[in-house]
Amino acid sequence: MHNLREEKVFKDPVHNYIHVQDELIWLLINTKEFQRLRRIRQLGTSYLTFHGAEHSRFSHSLGVYEITRRIISQFERNNYPDWPQGERLVALCAALLHDLGHGPFSHSIEQAFEMNHEDWTCRILLGDTEVGQVLKRMGEDFPEKVASVIRKDYANEIVVNLVTSPLDADRMDYLLRDAYFTGVNYGTIDMDRILRMLRPYQGRVVVKETGMHAVEDYLMSRYQMYWQIYFHPVTRSSEIILRQIFRRAKELYAEGYKFSFLPQPLPGLFNSDLTVEQYLLLDEALVQTAFMQWKNEEDALLSDLCTRFMDRKLYKYVELESFNLEKIKEIREEFRKLGLNPEYDLEIDFPTDLPYDVSRPDEELRGKQILLLDKQERLVEISEVSDIVRSISGIQRGKFYLYYPHNKMQAVWHRLPVELSQIFGQER
Amino acid sequence: MHNLREEKVFKDPVHNYIHVQDELIWLLINTKEFQRLRRIRQLGTSYLTFHGAEHSRFSHSLGVYEITRRIISQFERNNYPDWPQGERLVALCAALLHDLGHGPFSHSIEQAFEMNHEDWTCRILLGDTEVGQVLKRMGEDFPEKVASVIRKDYANEIVVNLVTSPLDADRMDYLLRDAYFTGVNYGTIDMDRILRMLRPYQGRVVVKETGMHAVEDYLMSRYQMYWQIYFHPVTRSSEIILRQIFRRAKELYAEGYKFSFLPQPLPGLFNSDLTVEQYLLLDEALVQTAFMQWKNEEDALLSDLCTRFMDRKLYKYVELESFNLEKIKEIREEFRKLGLNPEYDLEIDFPTDLPYDVSRPDEELRGKQILLLDKQERLVEISEVSDIVRSISGIQRGKFYLYYPHNKMQAVWHRLPVELSQIFGQER
Amino acid sequence: MHNLREEKVFKDPVHNYIHVQDELIWLLINTKEFQRLRRIRQLGTSYLTFHGAEHSRFSHSLGVYEITRRIISQFERNNYPDWPQGERLVALCAALLHDLGHGPFSHSIEQAFEMNHEDWTCRILLGDTEVGQVLKRMGEDFPEKVASVIRKDYANEIVVNLVTSPLDADRMDYLLRDAYFTGVNYGTIDMDRILRMLRPYQGRVVVKETGMHAVEDYLMSRYQMYWQIYFHPVTRSSEIILRQIFRRAKELYAEGYKFSFLPQPLPGLFNSDLTVEQYLLLDEALVQTAFMQWKNEEDALLSDLCTRFMDRKLYKYVELESFNLEKIKEIREEFRKLGLNPEYDLEIDFPTDLPYDVSRPDEELRGKQILLLDKQERLVEISEVSDIVRSISGIQRGKFYLYYPHNKMQAVWHRLPVELSQIFGQER
Amino acid sequence: MHNLREEKVFKDPVHNYIHVQDELIWLLINTKEFQRLRRIRQLGTSYLTFHGAEHSRFSHSLGVYEITRRIISQFERNNYPDWPQGERLVALCAALLHDLGHGPFSHSIEQAFEMNHEDWTCRILLGDTEVGQVLKRMGEDFPEKVASVIRKDYANEIVVNLVTSPLDADRMDYLLRDAYFTGVNYGTIDMDRILRMLRPYQGRVVVKETGMHAVEDYLMSRYQMYWQIYFHPVTRSSEIILRQIFRRAKELYAEGYKFSFLPQPLPGLFNSDLTVEQYLLLDEALVQTAFMQWKNEEDALLSDLCTRFMDRKLYKYVELESFNLEKIKEIREEFRKLGLNPEYDLEIDFPTDLPYDVSRPDEELRGKQILLLDKQERLVEISEVSDIVRSISGIQRGKFYLYYPHNKMQAVWHRLPVELSQIFGQER
Repeated sequence: MHNLREEKVFKDPVHNYIHVQDELIWLLINTKEFQRLRRIRQLGTSYLTFHGAEHSRFSHSLGVYEITRRIISQFERNNYPDWPQGERLVALCAALLHDLGHGPFSHSIEQAFEMNHEDWTCRILLGDTEVGQVLKRMGEDFPEKVASVIRKDYANEIVVNLVTSPLDADRMDYLLRDAYFTGVNYGTIDMDRILRMLRPYQGRVVVKETGMHAVEDYLMSRYQMYWQIYFHPVTRSSEIILRQIFRRAKELYAEGYKFSFLPQPLPGLFNSDLTVEQYLLLDEALVQTAFMQWKNEEDALLSDLCTRFMDRKLYKYVELESFNLEKIKEIREEFRKLGLNPEYDLEIDFPTDLPYDVSRPDEELRGKQILLLDKQERLVEISEVSDIVRSISGIQRGKFYLYYPHNKMQAVWHRLPVELSQIFGQER
Repeated sequence: MHNLREEKVFKDPVHNYIHVQDELIWLLINTKEFQRLRRIRQLGTSYLTFHGAEHSRFSHSLGVYEITRRIISQFERNNYPDWPQGERLVALCAALLHDLGHGPFSHSIEQAFEMNHEDWTCRILLGDTEVGQVLKRMGEDFPEKVASVIRKDYANEIVVNLVTSPLDADRMDYLLRDAYFTGVNYGTIDMDRILRMLRPYQGRVVVKETGMHAVEDYLMSRYQMYWQIYFHPVTRSSEIILRQIFRRAKELYAEGYKFSFLPQPLPGLFNSDLTVEQYLLLDEALVQTAFMQWKNEEDALLSDLCTRFMDRKLYKYVELESFNLEKIKEIREEFRKLGLNPEYDLEIDFPTDLPYDVSRPDEELRGKQILLLDKQERLVEISEVSDIVRSISGIQRGKFYLYYPHNKMQAVWHRLPVELSQIFGQER
Repeated sequence: MHNLREEKVFKDPVHNYIHVQDELIWLLINTKEFQRLRRIRQLGTSYLTFHGAEHSRFSHSLGVYEITRRIISQFERNNYPDWPQGERLVALCAALLHDLGHGPFSHSIEQAFEMNHEDWTCRILLGDTEVGQVLKRMGEDFPEKVASVIRKDYANEIVVNLVTSPLDADRMDYLLRDAYFTGVNYGTIDMDRILRMLRPYQGRVVVKETGMHAVEDYLMSRYQMYWQIYFHPVTRSSEIILRQIFRRAKELYAEGYKFSFLPQPLPGLFNSDLTVEQYLLLDEALVQTAFMQWKNEEDALLSDLCTRFMDRKLYKYVELESFNLEKIKEIREEFRKLGLNPEYDLEIDFPTDLPYDVSRPDEELRGKQILLLDKQERLVEISEVSDIVRSISGIQRGKFYLYYPHNKMQAVWHRLPVELSQIFGQER
Repeated sequence: MHNLREEKVFKDPVHNYIHVQDELIWLLINTKEFQRLRRIRQLGTSYLTFHGAEHSRFSHSLGVYEITRRIISQFERNNYPDWPQGERLVALCAALLHDLGHGPFSHSIEQAFEMNHEDWTCRILLGDTEVGQVLKRMGEDFPEKVASVIRKDYANEIVVNLVTSPLDADRMDYLLRDAYFTGVNYGTIDMDRILRMLRPYQGRVVVKETGMHAVEDYLMSRYQMYWQIYFHPVTRSSEIILRQIFRRAKELYAEGYKFSFLPQPLPGLFNSDLTVEQYLLLDEALVQTAFMQWKNEEDALLSDLCTRFMDRKLYKYVELESFNLEKIKEIREEFRKLGLNPEYDLEIDFPTDLPYDVSRPDEELRGKQILLLDKQERLVEISEVSDIVRSISGIQRGKFYLYYPHNKMQAVWHRLPVELSQIFGQER
């Protein structure tokens, strides 16, 4: 395959234009498996909190590809000796395709059905798919090369590092893109400057020391985005309901319940025996359609949960001052006594994230650290020189929340023991 | 109903924040009918051309409400005597709900099934719906008031004018919003300035003369958006396929064909006897899910069309230098001879729009003109004083395009008469 | 001279970063003649209307250089055969230095003292200056090459075309930059798209036909910027006072008046015998300082004018419905009768601009037309295919304004003939 | 004085529009003392590092006024009982005028001549000036009221708090404005959200707890701006030269040196006996003009320093690994031995800033803390609840730099002792 006779572009609100110069990339984008990513939202249920957040993994994948392309282009323009020129296409394909295996409302469905999107990505790349066929035109072993970059066991470490590291194209794109589509301005990082500061060096992508402040700003943005967007309690509430729907449907299916609506490939999903072909039928349109139909299912619990999700009648929540298992057990017991179902009427949530973690001195950290290259060509881990990064490393904030259906709680409010009414009295 | 104890806000990328101060508005937003607008894209199939354009009518409706709120707030702050203060809530409700009756891929579905979203909006407002119930809390006749603003026959003309006019909140929001989500920058108008220049005057919303340049800019933006976004040939291609799918499915249904997948309320759609309740089940998730399932229908035509739409294997197109019906007839005849099906394998498209039209001197124009208020408190129609507007009024550009399936054309290419091969040789 | 060992960048609000890769460019930027441009505002007195407009010709010159660099870089990356590769540095130097000869408040001072900034640019390039010495390091004839590009008589026409044409780097930078610093959003053009669409073709820089809408948008932006920014009546008022100050000072100097403050090189300016070295001493700091000191000059007129300019007590203005010389003469006569001085107390202003003009069929147009390159590699002048451009070509708007000192008019108000009081009664 | 018949606006790139509703504010803006702020740059010599940073204290002052106006307008709209309604105009005037006493290149000139801009602000407000006269129209004691807010001893503490606190309108405007004009994006804070979260409470302006993340982001932005912009070594280098020019000129004046150029009010500046009227003649145009003329002074040192500043031939710098006074003494001694002048050829710089400091438990902190108002209406100091703020509080970064003239160092390079050549070998 060759270069395209004329560069193709996609108009993109985040990067202005996505540039495609290689026929290979063009063909991959036009496969049905890649087009399917249009029907998977980048931020799952966040659109229920931030109405602008309807953007798809399709657009994010193009963005990750574009950033990777710009990085490699900079490396090549400057003839950096540590960049292995032959790896360009492997890296670009891995960047473009790294999210190919994501399912609808990915994190929730993975939890509910014990799947893993990375596995699915590799199965799609290596299977008898349009993507697989296009990749094979580069050589029989090319799909496996791309898959191994995504699995992080590719021989040429710098390629893995480019696609997966604390400062990779994936993270940069999603911070910028999620900030743009939600409308918050916490995620506006100086990507141009970061890109200019990246250097291939001894099998790693490192950052010139003079780019330190831009990296600090990036880490802070990441931290803010987690707490403002990704962990927003309203989003968590919708994810909880989503998981409960999946759980309930699976239970019913296992019990032999007759669904009035159960198109392909849902039975395979419940049986955990999906083929690649079936998996590719899964998208968010299907999930939403099933839920719309299930609003009228006979099973009252499933019907109620689907109504909640589709009509956005989410669970309310309260913050727990402190947390211990005993207490939760007691609350659950009380719920039972009140005639509530603690399996569905109560969920505990503890979102947590480390802005940047380098505390563990073991081998696993390799690839998780951000390394700066100073004037004397020495590598230093960023928290050694940045006061800011050192200060925020290891901050492990996290609050405990209880989620529950407000109307059911209201119905038993007069019978609530004092302790519970204190907890649930601060509802939001 | 009262003011909310504390103002609620929605984070919005276009207006920064959407402010809700009235309990009425808050309750309306939380009805299931309004939440359904999350599942209707603002720009239909444009996401297949501009991947960022996944934004929903939900977000647009909030935007129209917000702009209307700001206009009225300006009118009230300045105590303009021509603004009827009691109409505030009617106007806000009409602004918020004006798109409530839109169906999935609205323009295409309306054409295919001869429906009208405005009618559906009124049926939902006046029907036994959550929205209807909330509106009734303002008085038995309140739903009808809101509906009549939307039908443009409300007694107090200025309210209609605020919601529907060449410079209304609807148009301002969609220009800004569609520009933002597609990423093009043609739609960036100086809304703050336009809003500051609006005045209620003798039953109309007019513009202070000093705002003329901002209005010129708005009209030019509108013109550019039509040609860059709304009439983009790739989008038109996907709309054509969409309409063909609807047409084919309807034909098959009429013939008694047994669909392997035909959930509610599709039969009612094909029969044209949908109830309001059924209509509200229609959304883009359902349409996409049906198309995914129909990819495997036995009917080869339906299956092919659905594959095209879902996997984005769209029709190619050529531009016609000139247009006459005779020629088209001939081309269709040739298609037939070649074994192609001109009913589905050839579509003619002629998108057209007037940037601003005031040429017809009749009564109908009332409400379609933009009036400027000069220093002497005289009203002048904008094209009388703006060279730019006068220049572009009546420009009726428009190109004829032929759309067709590339692969079928390829198969008969060697048998194509010279004239046709000249036409189709310039394919894009 | 070589490439810089490491690229240097300037942070720029409009282009994000200005990239310098050539030692030659780096040295030119650091000459004292180029640094002087920091003390010349890009928009002259516009800061008195738009307080953000304090940006300098230094920043604009960097911007023009950067756009030119990007265009050439695109030409080289695509190996377009019609781009003469050896001309890169000549073009970059001409782009960077084209405004080098601008004086303080350039347009006003040129009018008052009959100078021409292009001549001064060439004198500086070719003279014994730091810039001249740096350029000579590229060859004895290099300064003359750069000068001839700026004079538009360089042999290789495409280089001239790149630096001076209706769609050149100069215009693109100033639209974007002036829009950014004033804060208006009329000047936001899609520069990335225009740059991608430019092609070197038969000694010209032309535009691919698919870029037509971006060019239309650019021409409309240019039109709007002229009327919103460059011709703003408050700015014109301050320019009028500025010219009057220069005029009065020159008159006084010619009369032998003893200025209490007249540092170098003002005498030379008044005598029209400035050397290059003296000319380079002229900057806006000097002009403002002189005016501050002259607020206390004995000559009442000069003192009043300087006070007006420095304390922003500008002339008021009225718009003339129509214009004829007879009427103006009468008004001037009336002024005289009232004891006013029509030489200073009354100025007529008629700003005018053509958005795009191609009407004259003569040779002179070569270089003033925007040519599109269509799919069949034919060149067409843009107004032949763009309805918008055709519509606005030749629009020659323009209003007549009278400017005058409000306080002096107030003093004679009761004695004003009816006709004059009608005219001046609408003061702004 | 009354409200203006029609609101006036200034177009502002940062706040879009500055709204003026009170005649008082309008008259103040049009005084010559306020107009003088156009000739004082907001960021002093930063334009030599960031060429966009030519914006004036005039624009910043309007911005501070506008933010204050919006805060108060929010307070009034919500009828918060803790906001003293009668204080609106005092607060707006103090916001608008708080920087009125700034001199040219304020920080440097204050250091060189032991002045204080706050004192000058008060002298101008209370003196026989246009500003003073306008203020007095509100009552004889009104100028003193405004002055005491600026001096922070106004009786009604909340007014002081609004204008001067860690989260005041001053800081918010300069972060946004300096980020905009330099083009860096570290300063983009979510001002709308912060403003919405501010509450008047018990004599203080506090922040609703839900605004905590926006405040964290603001503090981080502030930190980044200090290190990226305000403490940029190139800016520090130019400030050092500026101070040296002032110092040298003062020395020469004290010695009776005859300057070839010394207009009013420079003698008074050197004598430290400026009147208010004379002080108001000081602006950056005058300073730059004096420096341009002094390039040709006989005193070689003054001439060299002025050439350096005007032609941007700044001092180079090296970073000191560690710092002790002994070492500096030694370096200075070595300089003397080499024939260099350590008084002018060597400067040590140690810029430092605390992002947020609450460590000292004393009374002085009142007014320097950011207080959050939680749901239970309790006030908590932000670092008690924010991990981020606690982490960065008290970070006292700071690097030592040595600045010196590169050419003089070059001339003695071969004679440099080893230790010095190691230090100065890493020049930037």
